[in-house]
Amino acid sequence: MTQDSTPGTQTFDVVDLIRTKRDGGRLADEEIAWLIDAYTHGRIAEEQMSSLAMAILLRGMERAEISRWTRAMIESGERMDFSSLKDADGRRRRTADKHSTGGVGDKITLPLAPLVASFGVPVPQLSGRGLGHTGGTLDKLEAIPGWRASLSNEEMLRQLDEVGAVICAAGAGLAPADKKLYALRDVTGTVEAIPLIASSIMSKKMAEGTDALVLDVKVGSGAFMKTREDAEELARTMVALGTDAGVATTALLTSMEAPLGLTAGNAVEVEESVEVLAGGGPADVVELTVALAQEMLTAAGVSGADPAEALRDGRAMDTWRRMIAAQGGDPDAELPRAAHEHTVTAERSGTLSRMDAMAVGLAAWRLGAGRARKEDAVQAGAGVRMHAKPGDTVTAGQPLFTLLTDEEHRIERAQAALEGAVDVADDEASAAAESLILGRITADEL
Amino acid sequence: MTQDSTPGTQTFDVVDLIRTKRDGGRLADEEIAWLIDAYTHGRIAEEQMSSLAMAILLRGMERAEISRWTRAMIESGERMDFSSLKDADGRRRRTADKHSTGGVGDKITLPLAPLVASFGVPVPQLSGRGLGHTGGTLDKLEAIPGWRASLSNEEMLRQLDEVGAVICAAGAGLAPADKKLYALRDVTGTVEAIPLIASSIMSKKMAEGTDALVLDVKVGSGAFMKTREDAEELARTMVALGTDAGVATTALLTSMEAPLGLTAGNAVEVEESVEVLAGGGPADVVELTVALAQEMLTAAGVSGADPAEALRDGRAMDTWRRMIAAQGGDPDAELPRAAHEHTVTAERSGTLSRMDAMAVGLAAWRLGAGRARKEDAVQAGAGVRMHAKPGDTVTAGQPLFTLLTDEEHRIERAQAALEGAVDVADDEASAAAESLILGRITADEL
Repeated sequence: MTQDSTPGTQTFDVVDLIRTKRDGGRLADEEIAWLIDAYTHGRIAEEQMSSLAMAILLRGMERAEISRWTRAMIESGERMDFSSLKDADGRRRRTADKHSTGGVGDKITLPLAPLVASFGVPVPQLSGRGLGHTGGTLDKLEAIPGWRASLSNEEMLRQLDEVGAVICAAGAGLAPADKKLYALRDVTGTVEAIPLIASSIMSKKMAEGTDALVLDVKVGSGAFMKTREDAEELARTMVALGTDAGVATTALLTSMEAPLGLTAGNAVEVEESVEVLAGGGPADVVELTVALAQEMLTAAGVSGADPAEALRDGRAMDTWRRMIAAQGGDPDAELPRAAHEHTVTAERSGTLSRMDAMAVGLAAWRLGAGRARKEDAVQAGAGVRMHAKPGDTVTAGQPLFTLLTDEEHRIERAQAALEGAVDVADDEASAAAESLILGRITADEL
Repeated sequence: MTQDSTPGTQTFDVVDLIRTKRDGGRLADEEIAWLIDAYTHGRIAEEQMSSLAMAILLRGMERAEISRWTRAMIESGERMDFSSLKDADGRRRRTADKHSTGGVGDKITLPLAPLVASFGVPVPQLSGRGLGHTGGTLDKLEAIPGWRASLSNEEMLRQLDEVGAVICAAGAGLAPADKKLYALRDVTGTVEAIPLIASSIMSKKMAEGTDALVLDVKVGSGAFMKTREDAEELARTMVALGTDAGVATTALLTSMEAPLGLTAGNAVEVEESVEVLAGGGPADVVELTVALAQEMLTAAGVSGADPAEALRDGRAMDTWRRMIAAQGGDPDAELPRAAHEHTVTAERSGTLSRMDAMAVGLAAWRLGAGRARKEDAVQAGAGVRMHAKPGDTVTAGQPLFTLLTDEEHRIERAQAALEGAVDVADDEASAAAESLILGRITADEL
């Protein structure tokens, strides 16, 4: 903790602070510092924080308020420190990190972290498990036999130094105020407050102590942000937060109308990631992996890098194999396969003009790839394979989806989720493929 | 409970309902019925209700929503029934009730209830104890030796039949949802939601089963509603609620810039009320008592009554004496006097142009007339006597206030509350007395 951030002896009346925000006012720095500290330590009741969260949702917060709020969330817990990482010349190595707001089939972290690390930029990627229709990065990697998500800080630092890339579980000590507040927002209709979404994401990323950060803000039917306008506001807010805290931050707005790639699930997404690392894989996954890698490398100060080349020439794959092995995983092991398969076919011929990401995500979740409650287990082999994507020509009767699960009874409800998920049109023009990367937001444009 | 109001087997997701209101939507009748029932029975968490309350405060509710909300609050508990009250010809007697939103020196219930009852209209006045700077009617009456606030429903009904007026404590069984919600709003910055204020007041009054209701909505520095606009909105909302439920309801908007009458406290307010019942007393207290009596009598169907005459000729006093005696009080007993007195004098000569009601209320509270916590006791003799009111000419050194308390140490902080509470001007014109009754709202004008 820096000196100016130490909570003082000053105390406030929480009802006064709620009223200030309710009436459209601005919370002062010292009020925010006190508030988050008091909430973390249980001196502010949940029902007080929830009415404040609703007031924030409806009244908003200014940039300086959100920055202070985020700093207070970081200060509620421990911070990681990668400043001991040095290159061969003894210079401090700048780390780079990525955050995605979550989408269906979003396995980008898997190829991206080793790809960026293969250029000498350490990537400390602390990830979470999935809840709901978007899978979790750790759930996917745990499909690899032997791989473990939990590392001590020392193990993490050693792996960053030796391998360059680490994807592991965030420790419970990072931003505990965020964990408490997120659980509260989830049950009080206040999840959608953009200042609170932004500070929740950024407090965790900043507590991780990264030097550069690239945000993949999804927009579309399968994303949390349904409109371009909301996604842009969230992206701008987060880039401002990172910039204000001295982290080189940029954001890409990317489409989440259709799933990313041709798989949604756990082992199937690892498989597809390995294809990308081998120089193949679906074009959209490659495009986004390369674009995000370029952003991370530039933000970390590496110029003239060619990430696409590093996918083709095996450098990224080499780092991937070392990264998986360092965490106990066998990169050559066969991945678990689901016990049951079911094929969903096209009802008519034409051009596939739409595939609903949310429906595919829901189907994968119902097949057992995701969980409804934190304590549930996921099936490594469960998920959905797609055999066509928007823009492709399909023939009546050809396979569109393969549903994968260990429990046959799950298939029926997964099929129901996919009803109406796909449109097939006569007119090829109607399927003009939407571009995947919709925009880019940097600190200069705020 | 009527058949259509029985909570059904339908259940809802509270987060969906919070979101609906948050996004400016309208809650359906069955959603409101479920919500209040579930909240009363602890199936909705306090933090969920508080974020909903904040959404209601900022988004508002439509008339039909507030009506259904109020009905649900009534249905959360028991209802009183005065339909057994009959006149000499066996006709059902219409009852009348009054509610004041609270002000400093507001002892009007004391003379008003017996005054209206002296015309044959039963007045079942369920009252509360005070919290904060406005005193409670029961606290005032408890200054009378022997008087008790708690009556059984049978005692209340018998007294209404035999005496016509009863002022007593509301039973815990009336609108329990309101008690729970009010306590929550108090700590979550959501007290000021007009739909919730209106439904809180009206659910209790309607559960008491009155036929006619007159609302005294205070506006000004010493009132809960500081602006005419807010007070009018509250009054209109409550008149609409009463009207929708078949209760003959009107509202007066009355000024609470200066205290009502020349006393604020407990025994001192009883004393002043008895002066009014004896045909004397301060002009403003008499004016408001007569105006509210006229409204109640008209609403209860009594035409051509002259309440001012009933104060002069002793009819109201007679009912008062019987009312006090019926509840164990001695109407002739000497009232408790405070052990210590302190006089505050005018600093200059001129015309008293302003006396701040809030400051006087705070002084009385600090002297021991009110309580900070529900479990505190009040001093019967504590309070403030005023020796001049706005519009009066004062001379430097003359007494302005007499401070009364049993504990001498309280005087200093009461004096501090009164600093700056009074303006004395050279120009008589500046003291043009504001009218006490600012407006009247009836069902016809909604």
